[in-house]
Amino acid sequence: MTHDIDLSLYAVHTDLALEAKEMAEQSNGGPIPGVVSESHEEDGITITRLQVQNEAGSRAIGKIIGNYVTFEVPELRTHDSELGDKVATSFAKEFERFLQQIGVATDAGVLIVGLGNWNVTPDALGPLVVENTMVTRQFFELMPDQVAPGYRAVSAVAPGVLGITGIESSEIVQGIIEKTRPDLVIAIDALASRSLERVNTTIQIADTGIHPGSGIGNKRKGLTKEILGVPVVAIGVPTVVYASTLVNSAFDMMKKHFQKEQGDTSQLMGLVDQLAEQERLALVKEVLSPLKHDLLVTPKEIDQFIEDIANVIASGLNAALHEAIDTNNVAAYTH
Amino acid sequence: MTHDIDLSLYAVHTDLALEAKEMAEQSNGGPIPGVVSESHEEDGITITRLQVQNEAGSRAIGKIIGNYVTFEVPELRTHDSELGDKVATSFAKEFERFLQQIGVATDAGVLIVGLGNWNVTPDALGPLVVENTMVTRQFFELMPDQVAPGYRAVSAVAPGVLGITGIESSEIVQGIIEKTRPDLVIAIDALASRSLERVNTTIQIADTGIHPGSGIGNKRKGLTKEILGVPVVAIGVPTVVYASTLVNSAFDMMKKHFQKEQGDTSQLMGLVDQLAEQERLALVKEVLSPLKHDLLVTPKEIDQFIEDIANVIASGLNAALHEAIDTNNVAAYTH
Amino acid sequence: MTHDIDLSLYAVHTDLALEAKEMAEQSNGGPIPGVVSESHEEDGITITRLQVQNEAGSRAIGKIIGNYVTFEVPELRTHDSELGDKVATSFAKEFERFLQQIGVATDAGVLIVGLGNWNVTPDALGPLVVENTMVTRQFFELMPDQVAPGYRAVSAVAPGVLGITGIESSEIVQGIIEKTRPDLVIAIDALASRSLERVNTTIQIADTGIHPGSGIGNKRKGLTKEILGVPVVAIGVPTVVYASTLVNSAFDMMKKHFQKEQGDTSQLMGLVDQLAEQERLALVKEVLSPLKHDLLVTPKEIDQFIEDIANVIASGLNAALHEAIDTNNVAAYTH
Amino acid sequence: MTHDIDLSLYAVHTDLALEAKEMAEQSNGGPIPGVVSESHEEDGITITRLQVQNEAGSRAIGKIIGNYVTFEVPELRTHDSELGDKVATSFAKEFERFLQQIGVATDAGVLIVGLGNWNVTPDALGPLVVENTMVTRQFFELMPDQVAPGYRAVSAVAPGVLGITGIESSEIVQGIIEKTRPDLVIAIDALASRSLERVNTTIQIADTGIHPGSGIGNKRKGLTKEILGVPVVAIGVPTVVYASTLVNSAFDMMKKHFQKEQGDTSQLMGLVDQLAEQERLALVKEVLSPLKHDLLVTPKEIDQFIEDIANVIASGLNAALHEAIDTNNVAAYTH
Repeated sequence: MTHDIDLSLYAVHTDLALEAKEMAEQSNGGPIPGVVSESHEEDGITITRLQVQNEAGSRAIGKIIGNYVTFEVPELRTHDSELGDKVATSFAKEFERFLQQIGVATDAGVLIVGLGNWNVTPDALGPLVVENTMVTRQFFELMPDQVAPGYRAVSAVAPGVLGITGIESSEIVQGIIEKTRPDLVIAIDALASRSLERVNTTIQIADTGIHPGSGIGNKRKGLTKEILGVPVVAIGVPTVVYASTLVNSAFDMMKKHFQKEQGDTSQLMGLVDQLAEQERLALVKEVLSPLKHDLLVTPKEIDQFIEDIANVIASGLNAALHEAIDTNNVAAYTH
Repeated sequence: MTHDIDLSLYAVHTDLALEAKEMAEQSNGGPIPGVVSESHEEDGITITRLQVQNEAGSRAIGKIIGNYVTFEVPELRTHDSELGDKVATSFAKEFERFLQQIGVATDAGVLIVGLGNWNVTPDALGPLVVENTMVTRQFFELMPDQVAPGYRAVSAVAPGVLGITGIESSEIVQGIIEKTRPDLVIAIDALASRSLERVNTTIQIADTGIHPGSGIGNKRKGLTKEILGVPVVAIGVPTVVYASTLVNSAFDMMKKHFQKEQGDTSQLMGLVDQLAEQERLALVKEVLSPLKHDLLVTPKEIDQFIEDIANVIASGLNAALHEAIDTNNVAAYTH
Repeated sequence: MTHDIDLSLYAVHTDLALEAKEMAEQSNGGPIPGVVSESHEEDGITITRLQVQNEAGSRAIGKIIGNYVTFEVPELRTHDSELGDKVATSFAKEFERFLQQIGVATDAGVLIVGLGNWNVTPDALGPLVVENTMVTRQFFELMPDQVAPGYRAVSAVAPGVLGITGIESSEIVQGIIEKTRPDLVIAIDALASRSLERVNTTIQIADTGIHPGSGIGNKRKGLTKEILGVPVVAIGVPTVVYASTLVNSAFDMMKKHFQKEQGDTSQLMGLVDQLAEQERLALVKEVLSPLKHDLLVTPKEIDQFIEDIANVIASGLNAALHEAIDTNNVAAYTH
Repeated sequence: MTHDIDLSLYAVHTDLALEAKEMAEQSNGGPIPGVVSESHEEDGITITRLQVQNEAGSRAIGKIIGNYVTFEVPELRTHDSELGDKVATSFAKEFERFLQQIGVATDAGVLIVGLGNWNVTPDALGPLVVENTMVTRQFFELMPDQVAPGYRAVSAVAPGVLGITGIESSEIVQGIIEKTRPDLVIAIDALASRSLERVNTTIQIADTGIHPGSGIGNKRKGLTKEILGVPVVAIGVPTVVYASTLVNSAFDMMKKHFQKEQGDTSQLMGLVDQLAEQERLALVKEVLSPLKHDLLVTPKEIDQFIEDIANVIASGLNAALHEAIDTNNVAAYTH
């Protein structure tokens, strides 16, 4: 091809470690050294614990060294509140375990940060979780002697986005941390996925923080232990796919469709067929660029889905963070 | 090709008469007999008055015989309220003219119907217009002697959608018409477009009513003079494109991209290149079908765009329907 | 007293039969002939079944002949979702029983009508219940053979208020009933109470329909069997007290306060003390009239309270109306 | 009277300097030394510039030494957007003048802080203004060379309230100021008034900051130059009266009502009549205390009023803060 595209700009991006590992395994034709994972399924919920153990693993899948837990619940979009309660309970137990594993004390003060733009439905996940979280820090500040046992100090903010406040959300969070000195930050963010099936059905927990370029908005600065001075656990949910991802997936599907029917696609799809995936995605992005830059592809019922999954996460966090809240009855403490 | 698709199901659908005419002219290589139109531009607003005059014209562009007016305002998405006021004023004047042309009296009672689902942002246009419209019918009912001159009786409802109410919106509207006996129905609806450029920048007025299959939702029954017994003027705005439209456009753009670079695309695009557009769209829909059926592609700022354009239409309607409201100061009467 | 007030205009109004009966008993110094009631309490929920049996009873308490059930749950404002589930379950069981008692068949088609103005928080109860109700009528219309047993046809609308639509809500409901022919209407409405303690803690069911003058808004026409041709069950929740009620209660409390301290209030309160309650309320209304006419007194957390209680009622209705929904797990089917 | 109330707790509280001055003048029977003011009226807008010049004046009216400007617009509740535009223009001009007078440079960086709870309608004024303000700081940070002349760096945050975030809003603001270093803070807050006529019709500007105990919520820490290190201009609008204020006003009105009719009220009102206003208010609060503590009295149309006045203030601020925005066309830059 004659034209010249900086492919590094167009890498097939995914915020999900599990998706990244699967893609790498596909290319590699087998397991990736330095990346270990184990899965189990119960009640329609598949939990995968994945560890990127070293630099080699990190390079291979493009994810930072650390611990990742993924919940996959294909039925989560059915607006069934019984399933929602099950996922929240499961999330609570796993999250509690996760905090223990990375050494967070049961009385560590927590600041929950809901990233994203509350005016853009698929980006409103973080603010919605914050809205439904039980905050308790004020009681510890105002009447520390009277707080019942089994609770810890939790505060929660939605810092907005640059276009709304004029301030980087990381600066707002830094300022708040310096004043309130939490021991841990939990940051919730809406992600973009490579696959429409994952939209609003997958939740990822990671101890790696939020890195620039992840999530739906343009996060130009991250939320990491290096920047904030305290550990940052990130909770992410894919809520959109980008238009370019969709178009590229359509090429893939068309190719498979023809292969099934005819065995050979070279004649049907031409040279486009033979481009490497990265080149093709770059090409797709280039041809889509005269359109608007950040088109979002969402299911029609996005408003409902976002609200449902925000409730699941808020319920799960409430139960995981306070021993006094029974993880078997998560819904009772949430809106 | 070996497989068998009912192409009639997959016709490239557009709710805009102007778009349909342009597509037909492109195929035809020239003007379409039975379809006349004239355009003028002022202040960045292009107004096209189009008439489908006979059955031949109707068949050629796939639109019912009648009058269509289109406003094209490429800058409407910039959230500039001064431009918004200009468009509302222009809309008000043109709408007043349109009602005269089709013989609606200045004191005809009007029922404004905001179609669509208020829980789905791009489908909420109609309900939002209703929310911002000035209703006056109650004064004519309760104290007819005291209504100032220059007003007419206007009522407004958003009947919801089948999935929310369990009732066809056309049945609700019919019931209300039988009780309240308006002389004219104005129905506002969100449309799907073939082109992302048109999303939230184009407004269409038509005296043909709302027909089954138009709009974003699944309107299984229409709102027409035949069904309701009173004339129905439809106001429509494209607020989404469907995922299949996007993918298909991407093929087109890719083809043009290669043609510009290499002159010949047959090698690059393969047989896909040579499919007729309808066949290709059918193919795209088929390969996308394992995904969710009604994916919507929207700009990220959709919430803001919808609110802006709903205000423009509501302001324009208020000024057009009541002589007492100065069309040069439309914004003063709207929220 | 020299001035002349039409006391009939200022009768101490309550929409609750239980409250009316208690007031009448207080005046009467004992039980009211023609009004029977029995109460039981469980889990902090007091259920009172009250019957106005004849004209004498009706005149004595100012309520129409019919059946009334009241739920009193003082703790309902605590935003405890476990209690909310209990109330919904209790409501579902009682409502099922109520429908049986008044002879509604288990497969009777139901139209749920959410009265009130969605833009005025304390008046938004009805529309919020409608938003959270499961509608099923469309399945019975579109594919009657495929509906699972244990469901009935339920539709639901929020007709808005006169100031928003220009149409009486009763006219809209009549129109819809004529088109869709339900066997029963269930109308949900926000009420005004005499007592702040009742606000958002009491639910009333009645088989008497909605009568003009009840509820927060100005309902000039009712929703009754006489008007609509089908039985109407009303569900009401007091969500505000009027300013005049508050001021009058304050006089009462002040009087009791002085009595407790001094035994005699005549010197402290003067002649005001000796006015009959109706005269005093008329006086209070007269002195408040230079202020705005319909001031509402609400607890600060009204937005949350309304949402909570709307969820309770919607959950309860879903379980009561469909045998297939387990009344012990009401929350699973609601938002 | 035998019982013992700490009257200092129950002083008749007003957040408006103008109201405080009027009350003091009434007691004093004439002008207050150390407090000067001048008023002018135009287009139905009365602007009063008031200065508390010294300690004596401050003590006399219970307001801090400083400059206060009040806009009184009785018609502002009529939802007339033409009047709204006039008030915004008038506010913009006066605010510009105010900033000059207190020595704020035209290029001073500004942080707008919207205080209050967005979930409680009458307390949501500040967050709503923030939502509608034009923020520009990000352009100065990201591409300072390309910002057009006539703009300054403006950022805007709504820090929430203690019960929602677990953090004092003043701590959040302090943290953000330390990170972003604005030269001026403009804090918007909903106030409580003594008079229902003032609700949503009065705007106050003051250079004294926000003090603990002012506003609707419980501000336990203030936003002042002493605390934040930068000057703080406060903009306040009364959006509620408290229930106790209403009851007390009713006593007053009743007294006047009787006086007009009978000349003497002592017999009618008893000793209550002879209590000093402070004692009586304390008594009213005591008798109301078994009810809920913070009952709000609002007009029914509060949602609309709050939105209208937030738009006026946001439009006015946009025009006042950026020279490039024409103060005669304020609405064009706001939502």
